[in-house]
Amino acid sequence: MPTLYHHWLSPAARFIRVILAEKRVDIDLREEREWERRPAFLALNPAGEVPVLVMDDGKAYSGTKAIAEYLEEAIPEPALLIGSVDERYEIRRLIGWFHTKIGTEVTRLLVSEKLHKRIYGIGVPDSTAVRCAAHNLKTHMKYITYLVADRNYLTGKYFTMADAAAAAHLSVIDYFGDVHWSDWPEVKDWYMRVKSRRSMRSLLQDRVPGIRPPVHYDNVDF
Amino acid sequence: MPTLYHHWLSPAARFIRVILAEKRVDIDLREEREWERRPAFLALNPAGEVPVLVMDDGKAYSGTKAIAEYLEEAIPEPALLIGSVDERYEIRRLIGWFHTKIGTEVTRLLVSEKLHKRIYGIGVPDSTAVRCAAHNLKTHMKYITYLVADRNYLTGKYFTMADAAAAAHLSVIDYFGDVHWSDWPEVKDWYMRVKSRRSMRSLLQDRVPGIRPPVHYDNVDF
Repeated sequence: MPTLYHHWLSPAARFIRVILAEKRVDIDLREEREWERRPAFLALNPAGEVPVLVMDDGKAYSGTKAIAEYLEEAIPEPALLIGSVDERYEIRRLIGWFHTKIGTEVTRLLVSEKLHKRIYGIGVPDSTAVRCAAHNLKTHMKYITYLVADRNYLTGKYFTMADAAAAAHLSVIDYFGDVHWSDWPEVKDWYMRVKSRRSMRSLLQDRVPGIRPPVHYDNVDF
Repeated sequence: MPTLYHHWLSPAARFIRVILAEKRVDIDLREEREWERRPAFLALNPAGEVPVLVMDDGKAYSGTKAIAEYLEEAIPEPALLIGSVDERYEIRRLIGWFHTKIGTEVTRLLVSEKLHKRIYGIGVPDSTAVRCAAHNLKTHMKYITYLVADRNYLTGKYFTMADAAAAAHLSVIDYFGDVHWSDWPEVKDWYMRVKSRRSMRSLLQDRVPGIRPPVHYDNVDF
């Protein structure tokens, strides 16, 4: 069985978990605290970051988008990069958008403040960062609202890697209780559809010692 | 003719320029100072970053890797993402490696210190950042040395997007005169091969007002 080195609240690792689950690949999950820079882990990925996927033949795959593209080529069904050249471009643009923009402006700030600093004691808490993240999140929720108007999923009728990327980030932000769902009914409808997928199930059952998610966190109907 | 919004010393824009030139697409280059956040440019790319490619039908493409994958699908020949599933994975992993690792640890520091601060007067110069970049560059030169041992190009016999990504960064670092080529003979051999490609020509002829590159900068044989 392939092994995925991950961390519970790493949106990049969650993105790959959703793709693997959509493609019905069962995996062994191994928690890796990348900040400890464990030599055996650095040997798998010199960048020292999760996710790293080790396949049954022992070959290690790293780099979030490189892993995602690899999985789409190695296990084409069900396809998660679908449609015309332009539609596939749009899916990849959104994957980049979520991983870089919402990643830098929201998720990384929250994980750093609420997990690394408060729970693991790495660094000094900074409440401005949390306020910034809350402010930036509004822009992204507006953007998702615009994307899902008249659509089931972010780029059209079907679930794609763009939805997996957005859900990976939103599920982490929601774990901290930082999404005010009642303000964003269209995003909530989309996220209910995403949450009801089998591929989200294991991920929504994870619990990080020391932080409890809000009650609605793993409810499909919330 | 398509238009590419770029900045002279943006490695991401250089990466796309090399791909376009390899695929024999002539373009109009338009300089965009992304930090000025010009509304018409933000309308093309809400992320506000170069490169943005506007095709003849007016459609705008943004997100560096999304543009690269789009070009490979829209204009398949000559192919720049070649080989088996595993070889294509390795090309994509290296694209990610160069854009994130060498990008964050070297190029961004140098562009910020030597271009934005000294030439455009944005922010206060910080000589530690330049020393850090020089130190980090050594690790990356060692890594490229390891990759090109017994190979013409980074992933094998042929020039791929991985070479384009590495050359985009190294050409910017070299513009500032920060590569000590005599210490890295294998990397120099590889870079000579890359520089001799037609696709590198226009890029090596760019000059930024206020900074002159070293004499060897655009010499193929240096």
